[in-house]
Amino acid sequence: MTTHEILLGAQKAKLPLSLADTDSKNAALEAMAVALVAAKEEILQANAQDLEDARGRVSDVMLDRLALTPTRLTDMAKGMREVASLPDPVGAVLRRVVRPNGLVIEKTAVPMGVIAIIYESRPNVTSDAAALAVKAGSACVLRCGRDAWRSCNAIVKALRAGLAEAGLPETSVSLIEDTTHASSNELMTADGLVDLLIPRGGAGLISACVQNATVPCIQTGTGICHVYIDAAADPEMAVKIVVNAKTSRPSVCNAEEVCLVHRDIAKTVLPMLKKALVDDRVAKQLPPVELRLDPRAAEIIPGVPAGDRDFDTEFLDYILAVGVVDSVDDAITHIAKHSTHHSDAIVTENEEAAARFVGCVDSAAVYVNASTRYTDGGEFGLGCEMGISTQKLHARGPMGLSELCTYKYIIHGNGQVR
Amino acid sequence: MTTHEILLGAQKAKLPLSLADTDSKNAALEAMAVALVAAKEEILQANAQDLEDARGRVSDVMLDRLALTPTRLTDMAKGMREVASLPDPVGAVLRRVVRPNGLVIEKTAVPMGVIAIIYESRPNVTSDAAALAVKAGSACVLRCGRDAWRSCNAIVKALRAGLAEAGLPETSVSLIEDTTHASSNELMTADGLVDLLIPRGGAGLISACVQNATVPCIQTGTGICHVYIDAAADPEMAVKIVVNAKTSRPSVCNAEEVCLVHRDIAKTVLPMLKKALVDDRVAKQLPPVELRLDPRAAEIIPGVPAGDRDFDTEFLDYILAVGVVDSVDDAITHIAKHSTHHSDAIVTENEEAAARFVGCVDSAAVYVNASTRYTDGGEFGLGCEMGISTQKLHARGPMGLSELCTYKYIIHGNGQVR
Repeated sequence: MTTHEILLGAQKAKLPLSLADTDSKNAALEAMAVALVAAKEEILQANAQDLEDARGRVSDVMLDRLALTPTRLTDMAKGMREVASLPDPVGAVLRRVVRPNGLVIEKTAVPMGVIAIIYESRPNVTSDAAALAVKAGSACVLRCGRDAWRSCNAIVKALRAGLAEAGLPETSVSLIEDTTHASSNELMTADGLVDLLIPRGGAGLISACVQNATVPCIQTGTGICHVYIDAAADPEMAVKIVVNAKTSRPSVCNAEEVCLVHRDIAKTVLPMLKKALVDDRVAKQLPPVELRLDPRAAEIIPGVPAGDRDFDTEFLDYILAVGVVDSVDDAITHIAKHSTHHSDAIVTENEEAAARFVGCVDSAAVYVNASTRYTDGGEFGLGCEMGISTQKLHARGPMGLSELCTYKYIIHGNGQVR
Repeated sequence: MTTHEILLGAQKAKLPLSLADTDSKNAALEAMAVALVAAKEEILQANAQDLEDARGRVSDVMLDRLALTPTRLTDMAKGMREVASLPDPVGAVLRRVVRPNGLVIEKTAVPMGVIAIIYESRPNVTSDAAALAVKAGSACVLRCGRDAWRSCNAIVKALRAGLAEAGLPETSVSLIEDTTHASSNELMTADGLVDLLIPRGGAGLISACVQNATVPCIQTGTGICHVYIDAAADPEMAVKIVVNAKTSRPSVCNAEEVCLVHRDIAKTVLPMLKKALVDDRVAKQLPPVELRLDPRAAEIIPGVPAGDRDFDTEFLDYILAVGVVDSVDDAITHIAKHSTHHSDAIVTENEEAAARFVGCVDSAAVYVNASTRYTDGGEFGLGCEMGISTQKLHARGPMGLSELCTYKYIIHGNGQVR
């Protein structure tokens, strides 16, 4: 089927899905989870073919992201059941006013309609995104990367069998067949057919969407996250937070990429950081962090001199740019210039410095004395997430079920006229 | 100054404005209102020049929109004081959770940053938009139509004098000097310099923004609003609502453009509508409504046969397209195809039909037994509005102060790491 035909199919699913009650949607999610596990053989076989094709062409990290196992499939089904257990966002009355003229005005959460998701090679995104969209009452149109297409197709086939069994339209979940740029471009400009486009992938994909999308679009992901160690920081806490933010999972968007240290504490804290991020890790046979130092940091500890781009790079690796600043306001200015407005943290015992940092840093998540790694739907208590928005319109930070909805005003009267 | 220089100026105002407390912002609004009235002579003189230039080139309606009088200026100042009296949206904690690990997560309303507004020839939009932006803690960059530039410039000069007196940056409010398409295009693509673009104007402007904007943008305005008269409608109420929705102010976006009538009530209600919209108005020497009828309506009452485009036109005039449908679902299907998703109404005494209509019509405001003319920030209890969004992302329907804000997550910990 063409991309356009698939979009028309999704349009047809919109109304029945938006009217489906919570029990029907949960029953469909359960049926989809059952069907997913039942199709284990077909899915693993499709995945084996994808892996065979990809081997040699893509990195080992990418191969690992692409690979499915019986355990991963069971986890995907479990994820769908977890979404079923979350509260239904649809129908929530967000604000209710009774006007002096008797009109009852209810601002009510309603489904977005058709959500398109462009992603890359992780097949598990397929079931995650489908579960979230269905629970939020929206049809989803999925466009995966070429490397994962056979796997995603087998998964979507199973999910649709589950939908059909539960009595919801199969076209509630669709996979685009074309994996060339043409289909991405078509989704970006499918005015009236796509209510929300969510690109989940690298900086190239995101910027292509921002430049070309005429449909409503939410930027997700890129994270150049900062930890600023204030003069009044507890040095032990600062080191613990930086070690966690940098090394607990360097490949994710909420990992730290830049550490800024106040000059008054630099001589104390930088050697501690160097020990924790380099020496201790070498001793434990863990990958050491490469420190890229600005000239002032380089006067205090050994490391690689930071290059022009090092304070503007999402390394997603065991690399940390380190700089010394003169004040909390200097840190704020640096962050305003270099941050991707994802997650930034201050470590300080000084409440005034914390308040200044929180007030001035314009990011989706601003932390005082905690690791940037907490920016996550689960950790924020949303139960799940469809990605992390780094834009200001509609949703900022982790997008849960509520952020996949819009609202409408429902007004009941008894003949009022102006 | 170039548009780029003006945008850089607005950027500089962002932080002080976002940190300004409620009293400072209200004091600034008061000073701006005082300065506006104090500059009456200069503003009226500039307006006289604008009017002189425009006469003969634009319609009388446009000339009326452009014209300022001492009373209109006083009303503009009054409007600014009303905005001052509204609650401050900034800093509101929208959601607060304390996580099991002790993290305190607060989803907090914060200013958008820089809001750009492209509008046409109504000079009063200048002070309205400036007041709303300042109260919401954002700088605003205004781009008016050529016909109104001298008037808007005189107004902005006065507003900036007020800002300076109150100790807020003058560049909190700026007027773009270039009134060619070049400046609109520059605002649409000023990535990183414009946090939100709001076009307020005709369909051409809106669609240019949707097609070309790479900055976050909210579509406002176009309203092809429907009133559906159900089989179970109270005919008197139906006529009263249609007369109000069509004739109380036909030039506005929440005015009715299309009336759909259930076949079972058509023979009762259509003659009543014709009498109220045509005959009674002629008798009262009011402009009669031109009825553009589909073939089934034309069998019952006299009127002009509806052409191909009549059910897809925002007439903004004393013209109403009228059609007969077979059921509430037919009305819903028609509206899905032809509505601009602004405001649509059902008139019915049947709760099931009302619930079906409300559930299925995907518009910003859906009415049961009330006129579409209520879609308005003031009427909805928001106190004001910056326009009416017809998109689903971020804001839908009237945008008040809250809708001009975004949010960020502020997280306080005591050393938590994952």
